[in-house]
Order: sequence, then C-alpha cells, then structure tokens
Amino acid sequence: MKKILNNPSDFVDESLRGIVLAHSDMLRSVGDPRVIVRSDAPVRGKVAIATGGGYGHLPVFLGYVGQGLADGACVGNVFSSPSADAMLTVTKSIDGGAGVLYLYGNYFGDKMNFDLAAEMARDEGIQVETVRVTDDVASAPAEQMSKRRGVAGVFFVYKIAGACAESGASLEEVKRLAEEVVINVRTMGIGFSPCTIPASGKPTFEIADNEVEIGIGIHGEPGISRQETAPAKELVSQLLAHLTADLDLVPGDEVSILVNGTGSTPLEELYVAYKEAHSWLSQKGIKIFKPFVGEYATSLEMAGFSISVLKLDETMKALLQAPVNTPFIKQL
Amino acid sequence: MKKILNNPSDFVDESLRGIVLAHSDMLRSVGDPRVIVRSDAPVRGKVAIATGGGYGHLPVFLGYVGQGLADGACVGNVFSSPSADAMLTVTKSIDGGAGVLYLYGNYFGDKMNFDLAAEMARDEGIQVETVRVTDDVASAPAEQMSKRRGVAGVFFVYKIAGACAESGASLEEVKRLAEEVVINVRTMGIGFSPCTIPASGKPTFEIADNEVEIGIGIHGEPGISRQETAPAKELVSQLLAHLTADLDLVPGDEVSILVNGTGSTPLEELYVAYKEAHSWLSQKGIKIFKPFVGEYATSLEMAGFSISVLKLDETMKALLQAPVNTPFIKQL
Repeated sequence: MKKILNNPSDFVDESLRGIVLAHSDMLRSVGDPRVIVRSDAPVRGKVAIATGGGYGHLPVFLGYVGQGLADGACVGNVFSSPSADAMLTVTKSIDGGAGVLYLYGNYFGDKMNFDLAAEMARDEGIQVETVRVTDDVASAPAEQMSKRRGVAGVFFVYKIAGACAESGASLEEVKRLAEEVVINVRTMGIGFSPCTIPASGKPTFEIADNEVEIGIGIHGEPGISRQETAPAKELVSQLLAHLTADLDLVPGDEVSILVNGTGSTPLEELYVAYKEAHSWLSQKGIKIFKPFVGEYATSLEMAGFSISVLKLDETMKALLQAPVNTPFIKQL
Repeated sequence: MKKILNNPSDFVDESLRGIVLAHSDMLRSVGDPRVIVRSDAPVRGKVAIATGGGYGHLPVFLGYVGQGLADGACVGNVFSSPSADAMLTVTKSIDGGAGVLYLYGNYFGDKMNFDLAAEMARDEGIQVETVRVTDDVASAPAEQMSKRRGVAGVFFVYKIAGACAESGASLEEVKRLAEEVVINVRTMGIGFSPCTIPASGKPTFEIADNEVEIGIGIHGEPGISRQETAPAKELVSQLLAHLTADLDLVPGDEVSILVNGTGSTPLEELYVAYKEAHSWLSQKGIKIFKPFVGEYATSLEMAGFSISVLKLDETMKALLQAPVNTPFIKQL
C-alpha cells in the first residue's frame, strides 16, 4: 500500500489537521477534530446547513463548507458514518437562530446518527429539518426513490440550498427548495478500478482489467451490470439514457450536468466524457445551462466517473450562479 | 487500458473540444483546436503571457489561461511539444500591443519550437521575451540550474507574473519578476506508480509495489533514488531537506508552498503531506504565508506528489493574493 500516511489509524485525523492548518482563514474545527465549520459560524439570522458522512470523498463533505454552501460538517472514519455527538456539535456551532438543515446522502448509518443528533438538538431548542439526497439511479428502482443512495448529485443540492440560505430564506423555504433539487437530480457512475481504505489495506472490490462496473456506488457498491469497457461515446450514452429516462426529460428541457471524477481518472478524460455528453444531449434537444467537470465527489483513488443531471427551473438557474467561497472548489 | 476515450489518436482533440464546449464563456480556440486563449484576448495595452507544452498535465497548461494568469496556451500530443506554428497563433491572438512573455517549463522540444515561434512573431513586429521555469531540483545540480526541468512550481510563476501583467506593468517588468520567481522556487516530486499514455497503451515506467521514486519528473523521468516507501513524515522531510537546502532558507524566511498531487493521489493524502510539511517547516523557523494543496500540475493518472517551495518577498506576497479567474483552479 503506497499512500501518503503515517499510522493508518491516524489517517483521518492527520488529514483533517492538514486541512485546518492550510485553510485556517476559512475553516475551523470545534473541539472534536472531525467537526469543521465556517470560520465565521454561526451566521446570525441565516439558516445553517449541516452535512457529513464518511471520510474519503473530498471535496464531499468538508469541501462544501463555506459561504454560499454548507456551514459545517462532520466526518467519520473512511467510508463510515460520524457519530451523533459530532453532528450535535456541528449543529450547536452553526445555528444562528434561524434553524439548521441537515443535508446529506441517504445511507443507513448517517440517517441513524443524524436523526439522533436532530432529536438532541431539538431538545436544546434548535430547529432542525432534514433532507436526504437520493440521486443514485442504479441503487434502487424509480418507484423506490427513497431507498436510493446519495452520490455526486449532492453537489447541486449544496449549491442551490446554500445560495438560498444565504439569500435570507426561512428554514422551511430552504428545505422545500433542497427537496425540489433532490427530486430533479439523478446520477449514475461507472467504476474502472477500486480504491484501498488505509485501515484495511485491501481494495474495495475486484474487477478484471478489461471490465467496468456500470452503476457502481461511491463505496464500491455493486451496480447494475459489469461489462467489457467500451469507447467513451458508448459509456456516456449508456449513462445518459438511464438518467434522462429516469428524469422524464423531453426536448426543450434545460439541465445542468456534472461530469465527476471518482479519484484517479484524469481531468483530460473527464472532458472527453463531457464532449460526448454535450453531443448526446444536444441531439435529444436538451440544453445544457451550466456544466461542471472535475472532482466534486470522490472515493479516494477509485478510477471511474459519474454523470449527474439536474433538471432546471429559473430559480435554480439563478442560485447556481450565486458566489461561493470554499478552499476546495473553484469559483462558479 | 481502461480510459474514457474513443480512438486514442483523437484523445487530445476530443478532450480539448470538451474544454472549449464546457467553458466557452471564458476560453476559445483559435483555428487550431490545440490553441486556446482567454475569450477576451487580446487585452489592449496589457502584456500578454503565452504558455504551452505537452498535453496530459491539467490544469497545466490550459487551466492557467484566464484573468490574472496566462492569456493563451497551446498543447501538443500527450507529453509532446506543440508546434512553433501553434505558438505563433497563440502569440498573434493575445498580443495587445504591449508584447508577449513566453512562460513555460524548460524542456528541449518546447524550447526549440517556442524560440522559433518567437522569431517568427518578432518578424511580424510583436515583441516577445521568454522565461523558462527550472524548478525541479532533482533534474540537475544547483550549479547547472539552467539545465533543470520545469515542473509544478510553474504555478507560482503564472500566478505572480500574471498578476503583475494585469497590473499594467511593462514586458520588461513582467519578465524580470517572472525570472525572480523562477530563481526563488524549487520543487521535488515522489512517484508511486506510473500513468499510461493513450496512444502507446503502456505505463511510462515500472516500479515495485513497495517502492517509490524520489525526485521523479512529470513524464516519469528517473529521479535521484528509488527506495522502499516510508511514512508520510519521512517522505515529506526528505523532500523539504533538499528543497530548503537548495534555496538556502534560514529561520525567519517566509515561503509559500504547494503540495501537488500528480493525478491519482487522493486529496485526503495530500493534506497529510501538508500537515507534515507545516510541522517540519515550523520546526526550522520557516513561516508559511499561503499554502496550496491539490492538483496543480498532473501527469494523467500518475500516483505521487510534489512539494514546491517559493521564497517570498513583499511584492510576491501581494501578487499571490490578486484575483484570478479560470475554470480550472479555485479562487485564491
């Protein structure tokens, strides 16, 4: 295992220490090193957004803490949920009196811990609402949308709900808009090769040299099929066929898309995927309003990519363009 | 070879097409798809900065085209120099009447082609000056600095020279400052595993599962030693010992550092390296003014990292903080 680490059991905390040291002007930890909030938190009168989940997905989750995005996040071990206590600490540190929206991917461990944190926070008089992101179309059929996992599409929910909160909206309004984005975003990924969790030293899955896994999850969860690798054009059209059908897109619809690298896929290749996606969507009469290409949700060094499609309305378009400030993602 | 591509021979052009499609508000190609300039080029009265080199190093080179950075770039095939004609096209497209600075890494092929382009441009009445970046300490001894290759430290030169050009400085002033940055920046890298060039389908080098290459170049050029991998603390202190000795740093000096991932190394690991670098430099009494952590110069999916150290003065500090606008790197 060739990784930049010391003792594998210190990996998460040492990495977090590096983040806080490098970005102390914008982020700070609160007691627990695994709890990180905007340095200006709490922002008085603003709805605060809390997020979190397992470590190993940067810029998810901590990278989305900043102005115009989330207010705080907690992380657990690699690919493991943080504790309820950590989420409670986030909540108390970011509540500016207007309530806190919990916004995170739909996974059992996170739901259990964050629901518990929400209860404890309410006992202390903090208003908490929850929206779970369920964009992974390969993880459950459309009629069981609430069982779907959350993957890279969470980016769009942070972006739009974060801008809405920044504009002074109420907790109810921010929650309603976040739900609206969740209803309109879909993601599907393709895995080329696994990553290795430092503490285990073993790859998360095995796959042949000529095979790819269509619909893979961000922890290496099995997808819907394993097949021989194919030209970019075919891989992209497979993903988009699923995504646009699931979203019932029709000619004239306007979308934003995110071509996301899962870790070790070169940016150069992601742009080949974007070219193919642009061409496929154009042929269907679907307009791309604002594309994003890069690493927005990773799985350590897993090779592969995902495409997220968000069906837009005018409100979302305006909020997508609002400014953000985080050391992790480029200015929009 | 599992990569997002169609025909390997179309890889570069399809990837570039994706870039221009995704970022048409900020970048445009000029005739040749391998020539990309700021969409507002030429900027009248401003010194223009031209760069370029082989493809496969994003965000180097095209990712540094934008306000506050370079004005245009051309790329060749993967890891191969662009043509003199392409650089001439860049030059003519970005010259706003105040002259053009060629700023690029010190490689034989690039030097040959860009020197030729400079001659042709001068024949057409455009003032051209050149600064080559020579930050790779492992590529030649200190007394042969002009033979050293250019690697990730080019980021600092783009950033500072770009901000200087934006401020209205003359070609002579921008050149002098770029040279000053080159004199004060050093980089050293460690390779964990190779990348595969699409057209060849073969890894750029071979290395054992437990070995790392200290001082590796960005095309897999051999470094100064191959050794068993070691804890992050040791790897980082090896690099910093070389870098700070080569720069003659003493307690009280102020530096910026860049911890750069070469492609498939997770951001989480780069922050472990940053933590170790912060600790090592602090112990030596060297202050870090503004750190950068992420992928700033890659080699497709090569695994590994480099550290660049820039010895700062007040002018550089001010220019490091000037705004930039490119779709590829985060706001500073």
